[in-house]
Amino acid sequence: MQTKSQLTLVKIGGKIIEESSSFNQLLNDFSAIRGYKILVHGGGRSATKLATQLGIETQMVDGRRITDAETLKVATMVYAGLINKNLVAGLQAHGVNALGLTGADMDMIRSVKRPVKEIDYGLVGDVSKVNVSLLAPLIRENIVPVIAPLTHDGKGNLLNTNADSIAGETAKALSAFFDVTLIYCFEKKGVLRDENNDKSVISQIIRTDFEQYVAQGIIQGGMIPKLQNSFEAIEAGVSQVIITSASAIDGKGGTHIY
Amino acid sequence: MQTKSQLTLVKIGGKIIEESSSFNQLLNDFSAIRGYKILVHGGGRSATKLATQLGIETQMVDGRRITDAETLKVATMVYAGLINKNLVAGLQAHGVNALGLTGADMDMIRSVKRPVKEIDYGLVGDVSKVNVSLLAPLIRENIVPVIAPLTHDGKGNLLNTNADSIAGETAKALSAFFDVTLIYCFEKKGVLRDENNDKSVISQIIRTDFEQYVAQGIIQGGMIPKLQNSFEAIEAGVSQVIITSASAIDGKGGTHIY
Repeated sequence: MQTKSQLTLVKIGGKIIEESSSFNQLLNDFSAIRGYKILVHGGGRSATKLATQLGIETQMVDGRRITDAETLKVATMVYAGLINKNLVAGLQAHGVNALGLTGADMDMIRSVKRPVKEIDYGLVGDVSKVNVSLLAPLIRENIVPVIAPLTHDGKGNLLNTNADSIAGETAKALSAFFDVTLIYCFEKKGVLRDENNDKSVISQIIRTDFEQYVAQGIIQGGMIPKLQNSFEAIEAGVSQVIITSASAIDGKGGTHIY
Repeated sequence: MQTKSQLTLVKIGGKIIEESSSFNQLLNDFSAIRGYKILVHGGGRSATKLATQLGIETQMVDGRRITDAETLKVATMVYAGLINKNLVAGLQAHGVNALGLTGADMDMIRSVKRPVKEIDYGLVGDVSKVNVSLLAPLIRENIVPVIAPLTHDGKGNLLNTNADSIAGETAKALSAFFDVTLIYCFEKKGVLRDENNDKSVISQIIRTDFEQYVAQGIIQGGMIPKLQNSFEAIEAGVSQVIITSASAIDGKGGTHIY
């Protein structure tokens, strides 16, 4: 059996892109990653800022943003335009042959509008199908995809889509072609044993540990779906998942999930 | 010698994309074009509208827009985000496997900031280098590039770039790989002999005709650079250039330039 080539997929939030110092650091750090790579980015804060400037009210239900038609326009402008293309141009200057994409491009990621249950999230899509048959050969040509958190329904509509899910689903699909490491970057240095102590990073978690940590209340809130996504990715063929801070995308620190 | 495959490159302005009826007509008409194809779009009006909403003054000097840093942000959001990705999603729904691009993506189109002479146009780029070595094989895989009027300088900066120039330069570069027809769409049905008579379309123009028309004052104003670009494209290997209205992108009407 032929050994698969290494591919690192890094997911970053919106905050790191908003300040020029952290933006430049990200370009440096990401450029330094060896082998094939992909960047998936969020951008919620910039979108909220633009929406406010345009007088569009950000509707929140239970702490979650609702995407109406106007909000989707803003998301499309900020995610696929401003953030994505500045990342692409910035990476090009670092010798990285970046290609900015949404899920609509090359029909890469289809989604279905989230069904209305207790909450109507609006124009939000849940990933239904990932097609990397055209992406994989481009990656082998040293193209570095930079993916914005938008997908399409195949009927002409873009849909706002969670960047963590895009990262996870893309990593899974690419694991058929590459030896994939998925790195989720967030504000903390990793999964913390004590949320008030930044030094309490749990360096490794396997599924049985995870279930125990949840039962003990050590892992809670938004970290639970992040870890569930991570285990799903591992089970679907991703080699390893790392949860770390954006200042450590070399993947040496953080929490490693097997 | 092997016969080159046909490729049609259509350049449309911003206006056609702004109303849903003409937008849908464009999707239908463009989808119906046989063979390999590319869409290059403008989007000035939408950008002006967003800039106004954001309180950004559109600076004009001698009737030409000046691109300052804020205006470039707006252009990036509107051209590469809103317009480009809605075209991509719309074309996908018509079975066209579209891929939205700027010149920064895959390092496709580099430009240099226009030198300051009488007017400082700001962050505007003149195309310096087109690289279609990765694009041509994608087109052969039935990918349909949709190109926004932005390029990059290779130093991390996006630059606002005339969509007609992008269309012309891309057509020229692709003529090494394909038998290229370049279609420029604008408000009129073609180059008019009498600008007040829509039925006075000149059906064919060769260079000697052109020079005579200009000398006679029949062709004037913005049509002169459009035709100069067209003849340059022909001289660089493009098979034919057609100037027509957006409602006739099948290329059957309009003014054919040889």
